[in-house]
Amino acid sequence: MSNQELVVLGQDGPDGCCPGLLTAPLPQDQAVELAKVFKALGDPVRLRLLSMIASRAGGEVCVCDLTPAFGLSQPTISHHLKLLKQAGLIASERRGTWVYYRLLPATTDRLAGILTRPADEPLPEPTGTPS
Amino acid sequence: MSNQELVVLGQDGPDGCCPGLLTAPLPQDQAVELAKVFKALGDPVRLRLLSMIASRAGGEVCVCDLTPAFGLSQPTISHHLKLLKQAGLIASERRGTWVYYRLLPATTDRLAGILTRPADEPLPEPTGTPS
Repeated sequence: MSNQELVVLGQDGPDGCCPGLLTAPLPQDQAVELAKVFKALGDPVRLRLLSMIASRAGGEVCVCDLTPAFGLSQPTISHHLKLLKQAGLIASERRGTWVYYRLLPATTDRLAGILTRPADEPLPEPTGTPS
Repeated sequence: MSNQELVVLGQDGPDGCCPGLLTAPLPQDQAVELAKVFKALGDPVRLRLLSMIASRAGGEVCVCDLTPAFGLSQPTISHHLKLLKQAGLIASERRGTWVYYRLLPATTDRLAGILTRPADEPLPEPTGTPS
């Protein structure tokens, strides 16, 4: 019923940013938080819902437009959406009869960053060479 | 007992690459495959194991060096490692008494790519402004 359940990723990292899954052993507390987000993504229906929300041109999708794509009841779809919301992946807003969902790109950006390998190979040309 | 269980992500994508979670509604078959990998990451112990393996300087970790970091039995650790391996996130090799694990960066690279937003917003200052 609130937005207070959002998982904040990586705020406790050594540099205030990302835990860096591939760069250092992940502390237990960060692993617990991060696992919740990956677990939310670990379901085909939720992945499809997230992709439908994220790829919508207007940036927002009515739940009434999401449900027909699945052979599932609206309560089931709403439950999956709630898990995505609790993981901080989407936000919602009720307007009139319907609830509208949008991507929270900060979370997917963080996951992408966490999964990106550090450029720890020696960088041959860090500033670039004109030609 | 084999490496044949690797999940191959995104090979069926329209361009032969990544399914693009944020760019288009994800087809059901790709959602099923991708969910397996995220589900493998949806556990704190597996995330810590993956980070320990990925961040090891030599690129390889003996299971005998992983187990002591957890208050868990070696069979339990081996089970978690098996799930990471089945998801295509790590590979293993037995040498003598012990099994050694290493990251398969192609899978984490793909996940990072899938979670990266396309650069479709107009870029205001793509080259930066000196001041």
